[in-house]
Amino acid sequence: MNKHAVIVHDPTLRDGQHAVRHQLDRDQIRAYAAAVDAAGVPVVEVGHGNGLGASSHQVGHAKLSDDEMLATAREAMPHSRMGTFILPGWGSSTDLRSAVLHGVDVVRVGAHCTEANVTERHLGVIRELGVEAQGVLLMTHMASAQELAEQCALMAGYGAQAVCLFDSAGHFLPRDVAARVAAITAAVDVPVAFHGHNNLGMAVANSVAAVEAGALMIDACARGFGAGAGNTQLEVLVAVLERLGHPTGIDVRLLADAADLAEQTLMPAPPTIDSASLASGLAGVFSGFKKPVLAAARQEGVHPWDVFVELGRRRVTAGQEDMIPDAARALAVQSERR
Amino acid sequence: MNKHAVIVHDPTLRDGQHAVRHQLDRDQIRAYAAAVDAAGVPVVEVGHGNGLGASSHQVGHAKLSDDEMLATAREAMPHSRMGTFILPGWGSSTDLRSAVLHGVDVVRVGAHCTEANVTERHLGVIRELGVEAQGVLLMTHMASAQELAEQCALMAGYGAQAVCLFDSAGHFLPRDVAARVAAITAAVDVPVAFHGHNNLGMAVANSVAAVEAGALMIDACARGFGAGAGNTQLEVLVAVLERLGHPTGIDVRLLADAADLAEQTLMPAPPTIDSASLASGLAGVFSGFKKPVLAAARQEGVHPWDVFVELGRRRVTAGQEDMIPDAARALAVQSERR
Repeated sequence: MNKHAVIVHDPTLRDGQHAVRHQLDRDQIRAYAAAVDAAGVPVVEVGHGNGLGASSHQVGHAKLSDDEMLATAREAMPHSRMGTFILPGWGSSTDLRSAVLHGVDVVRVGAHCTEANVTERHLGVIRELGVEAQGVLLMTHMASAQELAEQCALMAGYGAQAVCLFDSAGHFLPRDVAARVAAITAAVDVPVAFHGHNNLGMAVANSVAAVEAGALMIDACARGFGAGAGNTQLEVLVAVLERLGHPTGIDVRLLADAADLAEQTLMPAPPTIDSASLASGLAGVFSGFKKPVLAAARQEGVHPWDVFVELGRRRVTAGQEDMIPDAARALAVQSERR
Repeated sequence: MNKHAVIVHDPTLRDGQHAVRHQLDRDQIRAYAAAVDAAGVPVVEVGHGNGLGASSHQVGHAKLSDDEMLATAREAMPHSRMGTFILPGWGSSTDLRSAVLHGVDVVRVGAHCTEANVTERHLGVIRELGVEAQGVLLMTHMASAQELAEQCALMAGYGAQAVCLFDSAGHFLPRDVAARVAAITAAVDVPVAFHGHNNLGMAVANSVAAVEAGALMIDACARGFGAGAGNTQLEVLVAVLERLGHPTGIDVRLLADAADLAEQTLMPAPPTIDSASLASGLAGVFSGFKKPVLAAARQEGVHPWDVFVELGRRRVTAGQEDMIPDAARALAVQSERR
């Protein structure tokens, strides 16, 4: 039996930025983009970690402007399509127009897993600009398969040409992913994508489960480059998909060379699963909260593991970073009372 | 439904030695052993990476003698059982007797996956010494489920009280493991164990597949400490097993603290999947061959990826390290002819 092809979407130059405070420079972007273009990676996502228009004091100023990053990567990639990311509230229609002028082919619009409605306007603008529009749901372990299917149907109705499930906390196990992807592929007519994080060591296995449940597109980063425990490891994923008979169109040996370049030039060290990342994934807390949790735990003299558990209990979403000191304080007060 | 308990077997202080040229000292062994004992890890394996009697010029002199390592760990562990490893050809009956005098409770005897017969004598000696005897098959991707079941039945016949499948090349995907474990559990009356390596990012997923196919014992190392891409990551595995409802009797939070200690005191850096480890896993080549392959590739001016593929084609087993320069040379000659 022929197995379906998988479109591999590489956000190394966008999601990886979280691991280096958005400081990738022109030489780094150019060399990596050229290397994955040569390996045949179909889509390469580029930008500030938080997307278009996000460079700021609050989440970090990028070294380069959005336009500079996009123009640099575009010039280095004769074949690969270029993607970028936008979160409504950070990026505007003006940012979208400029990104398209700088050669973007695919734009993804992100929202919390139960708030697909905030993607409507941007998805419409992207379609009008004539490039591919994709809808992204974040922190998808916080919604059921049925809820996610409904939210994806909304995004498809707004014009999304693909819908993407992000396991932003790295909380899923393979059966969780399979159930959700199956429900969504049954509910929408557009391709389904999966974007994993490795907090529980399951990023590659989860991605395979997504493909076997019908996902047509998988996100993965060279060496897993990303915040905390990192993303699905690109070169490993492609090798495993090809071995399982799912064609990707990518030359694995050249891709491994690109990953070597990424390790040498983009990152201080490849991501590993430390105890904070493990606790975060187990508790279902946004991967990006590791540093503020460690700081708050130190401040209050409590164990970081317990702060993650408490944040998971409170069902804190990405963006609710202000709840971290409060959770740590509450644990300190509890332990004083004992 | 109650799910079966899993005995977690921790070879951090034996398999991890491969990553530090067998140089762990008394303080390192004592502190880690005490930390995992406190977390409730049931079995802690200690020794030279290649087992009892292996310290030598050929595979590396350990910093401490076998007896010194075992005595140090034993003293630090009031609760955990202590394990050790032996490969016939390296270790002798004298080594076994001394290990038991120094407090070993479990001894594993290893053999290539089709050579279970070499374990007979040692398994018998261990039973006579009154401690638990376990049989280990190495490089198990090189044999079918049926062959492995037959080899395991031989070991059980020699007195092995458990049989252990090592994925020494990190080549398996979850369905491969499930099929083999199911065949073996059907063929023998003793518990089946699985020992994974992470070359394809599947060590945790493979271990879960083993448990769900009936394995009662899983090996895992703190932070995956081991050669190349490393072993199954202990603290991640335990967290995932507990979440899936398989009791381990281990306190995950204390185990995460032990893993932090391991990262800080035992290893230069936690293992990651580099391109050589990926190629090695894909090709089904013994994980320990990474360094000699890189050296031979450099010497002959060929790509290390191609050397791994060639060694896989030649079905080279662990121990046949002398075939590496020959394979690299053959590739160089081929490419000169073109």
